[in-house]
Amino acid sequence: MIGAILFIMKKSPATKPAYVDLGFAKVDLQRRHRQGHGEVIFAPGKTAAQITAIARELIKREGFALVSRIDPAQARAVRKSFRKSVWHETARILTIGQQKIPPLPGFVAVLCAGTSDLPVAEEAAVTAESFGQPVKRIYDVGVAGLHRLLAHEDGLRDARVLIVVAGMEGALPSVVAGLVDRPVIAVPTSVGYGASFGGVAALLGMLNSCGSGVTVVNIDNGFGAAFAAVQINRLSIK
Amino acid sequence: MIGAILFIMKKSPATKPAYVDLGFAKVDLQRRHRQGHGEVIFAPGKTAAQITAIARELIKREGFALVSRIDPAQARAVRKSFRKSVWHETARILTIGQQKIPPLPGFVAVLCAGTSDLPVAEEAAVTAESFGQPVKRIYDVGVAGLHRLLAHEDGLRDARVLIVVAGMEGALPSVVAGLVDRPVIAVPTSVGYGASFGGVAALLGMLNSCGSGVTVVNIDNGFGAAFAAVQINRLSIK
Amino acid sequence: MIGAILFIMKKSPATKPAYVDLGFAKVDLQRRHRQGHGEVIFAPGKTAAQITAIARELIKREGFALVSRIDPAQARAVRKSFRKSVWHETARILTIGQQKIPPLPGFVAVLCAGTSDLPVAEEAAVTAESFGQPVKRIYDVGVAGLHRLLAHEDGLRDARVLIVVAGMEGALPSVVAGLVDRPVIAVPTSVGYGASFGGVAALLGMLNSCGSGVTVVNIDNGFGAAFAAVQINRLSIK
Amino acid sequence: MIGAILFIMKKSPATKPAYVDLGFAKVDLQRRHRQGHGEVIFAPGKTAAQITAIARELIKREGFALVSRIDPAQARAVRKSFRKSVWHETARILTIGQQKIPPLPGFVAVLCAGTSDLPVAEEAAVTAESFGQPVKRIYDVGVAGLHRLLAHEDGLRDARVLIVVAGMEGALPSVVAGLVDRPVIAVPTSVGYGASFGGVAALLGMLNSCGSGVTVVNIDNGFGAAFAAVQINRLSIK
Amino acid sequence: MIGAILFIMKKSPATKPAYVDLGFAKVDLQRRHRQGHGEVIFAPGKTAAQITAIARELIKREGFALVSRIDPAQARAVRKSFRKSVWHETARILTIGQQKIPPLPGFVAVLCAGTSDLPVAEEAAVTAESFGQPVKRIYDVGVAGLHRLLAHEDGLRDARVLIVVAGMEGALPSVVAGLVDRPVIAVPTSVGYGASFGGVAALLGMLNSCGSGVTVVNIDNGFGAAFAAVQINRLSIK
Amino acid sequence: MIGAILFIMKKSPATKPAYVDLGFAKVDLQRRHRQGHGEVIFAPGKTAAQITAIARELIKREGFALVSRIDPAQARAVRKSFRKSVWHETARILTIGQQKIPPLPGFVAVLCAGTSDLPVAEEAAVTAESFGQPVKRIYDVGVAGLHRLLAHEDGLRDARVLIVVAGMEGALPSVVAGLVDRPVIAVPTSVGYGASFGGVAALLGMLNSCGSGVTVVNIDNGFGAAFAAVQINRLSIK
Amino acid sequence: MIGAILFIMKKSPATKPAYVDLGFAKVDLQRRHRQGHGEVIFAPGKTAAQITAIARELIKREGFALVSRIDPAQARAVRKSFRKSVWHETARILTIGQQKIPPLPGFVAVLCAGTSDLPVAEEAAVTAESFGQPVKRIYDVGVAGLHRLLAHEDGLRDARVLIVVAGMEGALPSVVAGLVDRPVIAVPTSVGYGASFGGVAALLGMLNSCGSGVTVVNIDNGFGAAFAAVQINRLSIK
Amino acid sequence: MIGAILFIMKKSPATKPAYVDLGFAKVDLQRRHRQGHGEVIFAPGKTAAQITAIARELIKREGFALVSRIDPAQARAVRKSFRKSVWHETARILTIGQQKIPPLPGFVAVLCAGTSDLPVAEEAAVTAESFGQPVKRIYDVGVAGLHRLLAHEDGLRDARVLIVVAGMEGALPSVVAGLVDRPVIAVPTSVGYGASFGGVAALLGMLNSCGSGVTVVNIDNGFGAAFAAVQINRLSIK
Repeated sequence: MIGAILFIMKKSPATKPAYVDLGFAKVDLQRRHRQGHGEVIFAPGKTAAQITAIARELIKREGFALVSRIDPAQARAVRKSFRKSVWHETARILTIGQQKIPPLPGFVAVLCAGTSDLPVAEEAAVTAESFGQPVKRIYDVGVAGLHRLLAHEDGLRDARVLIVVAGMEGALPSVVAGLVDRPVIAVPTSVGYGASFGGVAALLGMLNSCGSGVTVVNIDNGFGAAFAAVQINRLSIK
Repeated sequence: MIGAILFIMKKSPATKPAYVDLGFAKVDLQRRHRQGHGEVIFAPGKTAAQITAIARELIKREGFALVSRIDPAQARAVRKSFRKSVWHETARILTIGQQKIPPLPGFVAVLCAGTSDLPVAEEAAVTAESFGQPVKRIYDVGVAGLHRLLAHEDGLRDARVLIVVAGMEGALPSVVAGLVDRPVIAVPTSVGYGASFGGVAALLGMLNSCGSGVTVVNIDNGFGAAFAAVQINRLSIK
Repeated sequence: MIGAILFIMKKSPATKPAYVDLGFAKVDLQRRHRQGHGEVIFAPGKTAAQITAIARELIKREGFALVSRIDPAQARAVRKSFRKSVWHETARILTIGQQKIPPLPGFVAVLCAGTSDLPVAEEAAVTAESFGQPVKRIYDVGVAGLHRLLAHEDGLRDARVLIVVAGMEGALPSVVAGLVDRPVIAVPTSVGYGASFGGVAALLGMLNSCGSGVTVVNIDNGFGAAFAAVQINRLSIK
Repeated sequence: MIGAILFIMKKSPATKPAYVDLGFAKVDLQRRHRQGHGEVIFAPGKTAAQITAIARELIKREGFALVSRIDPAQARAVRKSFRKSVWHETARILTIGQQKIPPLPGFVAVLCAGTSDLPVAEEAAVTAESFGQPVKRIYDVGVAGLHRLLAHEDGLRDARVLIVVAGMEGALPSVVAGLVDRPVIAVPTSVGYGASFGGVAALLGMLNSCGSGVTVVNIDNGFGAAFAAVQINRLSIK
Repeated sequence: MIGAILFIMKKSPATKPAYVDLGFAKVDLQRRHRQGHGEVIFAPGKTAAQITAIARELIKREGFALVSRIDPAQARAVRKSFRKSVWHETARILTIGQQKIPPLPGFVAVLCAGTSDLPVAEEAAVTAESFGQPVKRIYDVGVAGLHRLLAHEDGLRDARVLIVVAGMEGALPSVVAGLVDRPVIAVPTSVGYGASFGGVAALLGMLNSCGSGVTVVNIDNGFGAAFAAVQINRLSIK
Repeated sequence: MIGAILFIMKKSPATKPAYVDLGFAKVDLQRRHRQGHGEVIFAPGKTAAQITAIARELIKREGFALVSRIDPAQARAVRKSFRKSVWHETARILTIGQQKIPPLPGFVAVLCAGTSDLPVAEEAAVTAESFGQPVKRIYDVGVAGLHRLLAHEDGLRDARVLIVVAGMEGALPSVVAGLVDRPVIAVPTSVGYGASFGGVAALLGMLNSCGSGVTVVNIDNGFGAAFAAVQINRLSIK
Repeated sequence: MIGAILFIMKKSPATKPAYVDLGFAKVDLQRRHRQGHGEVIFAPGKTAAQITAIARELIKREGFALVSRIDPAQARAVRKSFRKSVWHETARILTIGQQKIPPLPGFVAVLCAGTSDLPVAEEAAVTAESFGQPVKRIYDVGVAGLHRLLAHEDGLRDARVLIVVAGMEGALPSVVAGLVDRPVIAVPTSVGYGASFGGVAALLGMLNSCGSGVTVVNIDNGFGAAFAAVQINRLSIK
Repeated sequence: MIGAILFIMKKSPATKPAYVDLGFAKVDLQRRHRQGHGEVIFAPGKTAAQITAIARELIKREGFALVSRIDPAQARAVRKSFRKSVWHETARILTIGQQKIPPLPGFVAVLCAGTSDLPVAEEAAVTAESFGQPVKRIYDVGVAGLHRLLAHEDGLRDARVLIVVAGMEGALPSVVAGLVDRPVIAVPTSVGYGASFGGVAALLGMLNSCGSGVTVVNIDNGFGAAFAAVQINRLSIK
């Protein structure tokens, strides 16, 4: 048991508290040490004031804050408190400050099947970039027009990791995984109607993919896919 | 109202009874007149004796009977009563006699994604052939190895109708529909495990296909797909 | 492999680019060559400006654009940029210009069960007409009043393909398929409440239809049904 | 509160115990007084010995026992203990003795769509008959061959209540309810495959029936439908 | 076949057309003859003008119209066109004129479990009353306080049919069916949250009721339950 | 962090190892200290030899082992290795040795709705007894015959905790919770057919219970309910 | 039967009526005697006037009323009629007056995984407090940062009952149940997106918890969990 | 387009055919070039003869074959044809020959929650090892006994990728992801009963994991997880 305890403690430098209690939230200050990145703020259900307070705390200690799924009203309100913020509108992300991290090698390809998948694809792309990961965007390359996909030879061949975003039947990751020998992270989106059931059809399609090496994240979870891609690529510099 | 009645009656030649009552079943003798084919015997849940009785009735009046989803024990038992029967084992079909119908033009392509989809694909192929429809089989061409699919240039280009059979994520119909401008009938199969949910993943994938002109039948319903293909192709000779 | 490549390339006349990249979308310019029709614009989730831009591109090269699922506000905004547009309000379709295609033979019957199914039925009817396919509308003929259906003798007997639209229990395609020997394309609608589960009850009913030759499209997918019907009927002139 | 108590007590004649405790079961002896019929034995999960013991108790006090869903092995074993038993094999019912009840007026029609629905239809028919209710059987009249249904003019017109049994898409009750003005009790069956999901498709179809006056019981519940029909018809002699 | 045809025709007096075509709807004028009541107008998805037009047609020929699921705005607009209308606000029903039908014997009890079930219970009660059926309302008698239910001795004992409305776990019909020997029609409501899944929990509970003679209608379908009760009770005067 | 570590360590007496590694399993030897009971052996999927090995280890250190969900073949094989074992056949439990624990106060009532629920009810009853908890069994008291339930005045009134086991619609816990002011633990069972969906109907009914203070465990989880009841009752002696 | 009747009657003091009928609701006045607490008002679907009327009745007889799930508009309107009300905004609870009940021993711990679970956690905490139960709040301690949970040594060790609130994957109750030997009541919340399906993922996770002694309530049902905890803890003073 | 074609062709050395057609299967001979590994044989639904034929072909050209999900009867029959085969019984894998691949750096940790998850965990471990990847097994470390997990300090800290296998509530990946900063691949298993729904509860739990960087594969898909881990780790040597 002592081992486990030491293992956790070694990762927490003595001079840093475990978390800051803001009353409505406990901001985790050890996450960078345990997981390699500071805490991220998920905006839905939070007031602009709460987002601002958490962000301020993170900026003070980490120099960087990323707010995901922020809506325009929240974004406008929060930006009033920070000078160096960038609002990625399509990605629904607000970044404040900049992470002091070494750039990651190569690039991650972010593909999406249709234009309606753009918000999720951009959430993935902007997240990866904010973690120091160069990204190549390959959008609107759904399987109903294979030539659009095949035209992106370089992006497919040289990507270290591929994030493949698709709604409806979610077939794109299977096709991509058949063409490359790199990790493919599939992101189902809630794009579709009727029997798409809010992304369930795409999710099931991706979980049942006949393509080897495909792993899947939650519906619309562009952030999670990007974070996994960064973790994967970071292995090469360890 | 009279119109509707005449409409139905015209289709029923006066000298033919509407159906034969075997006690446990009413054999529909007007189906050929209403729907262009004689009745088909669905084997599950029927005894070999019942199948034989219905088949005998159909042979007497139509000269042909098709038994679908027949298992080996049923097939062996039923075949004892008929001299001219053919047992298509993989397709789980027993045909007795031969339909007197003019051959249909061109060919229907039957594609399947993996070897486990063979029984359903064969059910479709044998059904279509027994209705006078030439068939080209293109098997084991799942999307994880696109080159196997693209190698079948002729089959894809020249088919009048394409029946595309796939389990797991069911992505093949979307890819095929993007390559051709002919009707594509998608057949989900119950092949898979876990989150395939007995074919639901493939079914939903096909219903949400981004490929234009894809229509879908029930899980494992190779017969239905073949029958629809025959109806479609028969339009050209009317 | 070469065959497959040639096969795809032959279909793409050398003088035409593969697609136009508008930044937010890649307009597929080969679809007419691969699938027999130009690209269609699905309005939900697009701004009026984006719809207008894509439509302009299509008009420039194809002379025709069809926007589906357009809402009144989008329709009014987009129409300001085009002189020759027709807004089919019930069908939620905006057509701009006219396709230069030869008329298709015979007619397609579009049936619907209740008045609430009208938007989906009209989406199917207007789509088919815009592809040169004459249409006969047979509306409000649900199975609870069979005489209303049977009164349409001519429409049922002479249609080359039947598109049958129904919500709630979705029983109409089964009844229709029992009366005719032509392809029936069933369209479940999200009409209903409670255990209709947004069209699932109708969808399952149609997938399990005991009527031969019934194929199914996604819930509310009037466009898909019409496109499949046109593809089927076009076979006769090839 | 006193009222409610008296209300229940009046129904329980003082000389009769409330129930008999057999150790593994409490045989309800007041059911006839509260619900108009003695208790029924549901065979699945019971040993032949347990069925025999409960039946013996019921025979002693009621002169009649009905065992439902009994399989051949159970039936053979139980029949050894009773001289006057009838085994309705298709209905999977064993009746012992006979109810002393006045016959009910008119007849109940039991319809079923296909031959695979026979066990459920027979469960309904035999149950109703054992409660003194004359029954007319109208079997194998699915909606894909409407003429078979319409041929049964008398059965449909004169039935006091109609029990309509169907699997697959379960469309028959809707069609029947549109033709008659009597109560229709719909019984979905687990007949079908793939997207029938063990009777769910038929169940949903019936719950969403556009036919007025259709009520529904559980999948395969022929007994429940028959019991409800008997209760309905018994109103006329009260 | 002739029999079936005559059977339907006899029910349609020669001097009356089969239906009136209003362009957007076919008003069924034979329903009273086939099903014992005139057509009913389901308001959702119809404009006030459409409701008014259909109602006018029904009033002209039947002297009575019932509009169900009408919202306040529709009700206010439609009432401007008719002098003799009654708006049952909780029941969401508008009745215009009065049916000329003989009163039905006894009374139907309408029970509901909680105050949130009132709209559905009232839909049932008002519908039954408009068909000449006296009704006794027994509301807010959920199983968590059995004494409230048992206090209604007379209502339970003397009702000819019982309509039992409940959301959440939907246990009330089982308890009621154990106390009476009359037909019980169970109506699940969409009342609840979380794992009630919009009424599914109540629906499943009712379909699995251990109480004999319980039949079920769609979630929130107070109209259907009332109509079935009226059909049942009408048997006694035939 | 130190606090948390001490907290866990205080509970683990220094002289005892954390677990024993049997190769195929790690037998948790701290559970009694963390959770108040030794580890329990879940039989499905284990060989008789594996069960015997784990039981031997537990007997050596705890003097007691409880094997749940054991089938007859496993039970017979395992019992050969232990002299003091008791096989509770209906409960599918094998106990070896005896726990050295003080008896718990009062009694827990275990109720079940029907005879088919007996295995789950007995699993709960035997488990509670093996933890020193007196139990009163009140079986076969489903809501369709309320008088059977109400006859058990003492059992209901004086129980400290009530475990209520029911399949089908799962209504019994709601009714019981309305009669008592003690904790009610509801156990849905997989008893039923058709729309019971293997216990889902009962589970949903219990989760939506209108009775206050009802909590729920997994389908068929008699063990879990008993263990929770014991934990609750043990509070009174702390 | 007499026993059962007396049992219920003994609990109802003769001088108190069984319920008050307000027309739209029957206020249960015996609940305190049957279940140990007065009736609670569930606000959704009630007008402010209805809430006020029921609350007035409860205040008159019980001196206390608790309104749950009240929204800001309702709260503001209802508070105008009562001087001594407290609006717990996050908990969405309005309490009027105060219960005259002895304080319960020890404390109940209310844990939640994330800040979005606060409304449900507060509903539980405020409810428990209003029933005389001291509460310790341990918020924002999700399993992704175990050190935050383990830091609350005292809260975990000394709680008599633990209410554990979590959305998304709902893993917190399993971890907590592995650390303590007290009853754990798990509350899934509808927090999450995509495949959380409105709390279903968390609900299923908790029902399948490998932690012993975990029981579960409906999604978002903080009130029910608190009420069960109070019932459990009250056992110790009986 | 030429680019895409070249891209695919470059990967296929000219001297090697695209695939071998065995009649019942097309053995993909380019997979190693496209995806970095030879084709794998999925045993279910194949005869021993078919498995042998495909394996022979792979051995001839690749020197190695891996058969997954092989049952004992298949394994025994297939092994008769190959001298150098190893049957990994728990993993249900048969390997024939050995891959000529350089060993991968570091190790992959394979964790599982309970002993019933062993077959899936072993499928992952054996697969990874057969691709040259050293593996550390950390089994039976479910979240109900956290100390068992924390005892494996080295395995958790130093693993390059972690494959976390769990059934029931599937909480282990969330806890693990909170402790490490490496890629976590979660594998839900079908272990459980009742509301585990064959692994759905675990699958949903993992998709909704609050732990960053968790990706998910299909239920029981140990092979897929291992293959993804190998692809990830192989990046470091490229």
